[in-house]
Amino acid sequence: MDWAADIQAAAARIHGHILRTPVVTVDGFGLGYPIQMKLEQMQHTGTFKARGAFNTLLSSDVPESGLVAASGGNHGAAVAYAAHHLSHKARIYVPEMAGPAKVALIRDAGADLVVVPGAFSDALDQALAYEAETRAMQIHAYDAPATVAGQGTCALEWEDQGLDADTVLIAVGGGGLIGGAMAWFDGRRRVVAVEPETSCALHAALKIGEPVDVNVSGVAANALGAKKIGQICFDLTVSSGAESVVVTDDAITRAQHALWRETRQLVEPAGATALAALMSGAYIPEPDEKVAVLVCGANITPDPFQ
Amino acid sequence: MDWAADIQAAAARIHGHILRTPVVTVDGFGLGYPIQMKLEQMQHTGTFKARGAFNTLLSSDVPESGLVAASGGNHGAAVAYAAHHLSHKARIYVPEMAGPAKVALIRDAGADLVVVPGAFSDALDQALAYEAETRAMQIHAYDAPATVAGQGTCALEWEDQGLDADTVLIAVGGGGLIGGAMAWFDGRRRVVAVEPETSCALHAALKIGEPVDVNVSGVAANALGAKKIGQICFDLTVSSGAESVVVTDDAITRAQHALWRETRQLVEPAGATALAALMSGAYIPEPDEKVAVLVCGANITPDPFQ
Repeated sequence: MDWAADIQAAAARIHGHILRTPVVTVDGFGLGYPIQMKLEQMQHTGTFKARGAFNTLLSSDVPESGLVAASGGNHGAAVAYAAHHLSHKARIYVPEMAGPAKVALIRDAGADLVVVPGAFSDALDQALAYEAETRAMQIHAYDAPATVAGQGTCALEWEDQGLDADTVLIAVGGGGLIGGAMAWFDGRRRVVAVEPETSCALHAALKIGEPVDVNVSGVAANALGAKKIGQICFDLTVSSGAESVVVTDDAITRAQHALWRETRQLVEPAGATALAALMSGAYIPEPDEKVAVLVCGANITPDPFQ
Repeated sequence: MDWAADIQAAAARIHGHILRTPVVTVDGFGLGYPIQMKLEQMQHTGTFKARGAFNTLLSSDVPESGLVAASGGNHGAAVAYAAHHLSHKARIYVPEMAGPAKVALIRDAGADLVVVPGAFSDALDQALAYEAETRAMQIHAYDAPATVAGQGTCALEWEDQGLDADTVLIAVGGGGLIGGAMAWFDGRRRVVAVEPETSCALHAALKIGEPVDVNVSGVAANALGAKKIGQICFDLTVSSGAESVVVTDDAITRAQHALWRETRQLVEPAGATALAALMSGAYIPEPDEKVAVLVCGANITPDPFQ
């Protein structure tokens, strides 16, 4: 892969379809040093995932039968949104645990929505069956090159906006977002992967030496609860030497409340997970180390207006 | 007044105490044209008012007895925050109608808080009595040069961030924020003053030709419900020829929901009032007219985490 070229091509492709999300430097959270933040939770449908969805659709021949996706919610919402804007059909299988805010998001984007009892893997099984039957195009939530390259545009954009950090903290579910960031930064900055301790597919894989199934639970599981880390992310983590840390649910909730209290950004637990690593001391920067936090998801349950 | 010099001095004075709030361009809200937005509701205590509070405190000899303010809530929160950070005492009189989120904000900032039954004017009476008794320093919420110059730094900062708009829409309560913006822009850009139709002190004053008492009510009244427009704002409006429009409560609520749905910014009704003028058609830009909206308040009731 030539990731730099792929991510640059993705950025050109999705330009005009996605929001150039704002950046801000905040000296707060009781840390005593400033944090550069990118507010990627302002992206269409509330997460970075619109980037990968648009990149995939705009670089593929989409069949008449349209798209199919299985998603804990945020990926499904992004695929539904991108499909709707590009006038494709979309069938989205969502596990029951996704929560009403994400289900409503997908429905509002005009997708054909199926809520599946059980976990993500059950939704994935049904999506695979639908794909086999209709030849609809499957979009993987995180472990496909076009998805990773699309998410990598977030890091490219951040550098274009003047990112001036030694270290960037990013929350990890299946590894699409952090995979894209590692691919773009290519070792130029330290990347710290942050996972909930009850949902840490990357952390477990790094211990064992290969992607492995894990149990997932906790406050951020409906967004970060991938049962196995993507191979692309795993390989990039090993080759780039990115650091992996875990945080408790309590630390995530405290970071979520602090983001609202201090910056009036209302995010879902997954969106506050990277900040939680700093506030809890799971990652302690050196003196003079410049740090940045990617704020990545806003689809909170209950939705404040529902 | 040399407003440009005063606002530049204010910006230098408050630098490091306030947040440089981010800007973003959004093509949405069913409008068919992009809007430049400044997310000033991310400012400390959730509104622009920290700017005026810091500018006043840092340009005054604050007496031993500290500060006193009467406030619908947001000004009081900003004064309490600034006083706390600069190690001054602060007594804040808040009318009952302010709502629990704003009262909690003020209390959390460490101020000595008095909740007064009735409207803003009742809180102001008590603040004046306290001032006479203790010689505490009064900070006016909007009609004082240091307050207006402080709020004007928001417009200065926005231009420094690349504001590229013919027209800037700003919500009006007592006129501190828009006064500062008109003072800074000095006719270089069209300013549109947006008020709720049930709380429109500026609109009423312009009709009659001088500041006049109005009744205030509606969803944004606890932030925009000034009974009389400030003289400074009134004079600047007349001299600059700024346009005045009004919007309904329903339009404000629709804009508030759209800001959450499309950009994941959760604001109080006052914070969505300027956008409401575009979404409702109260202000319709010409083709090719570049427009900007100042998003200014986030202290929503109920607070999502209380």
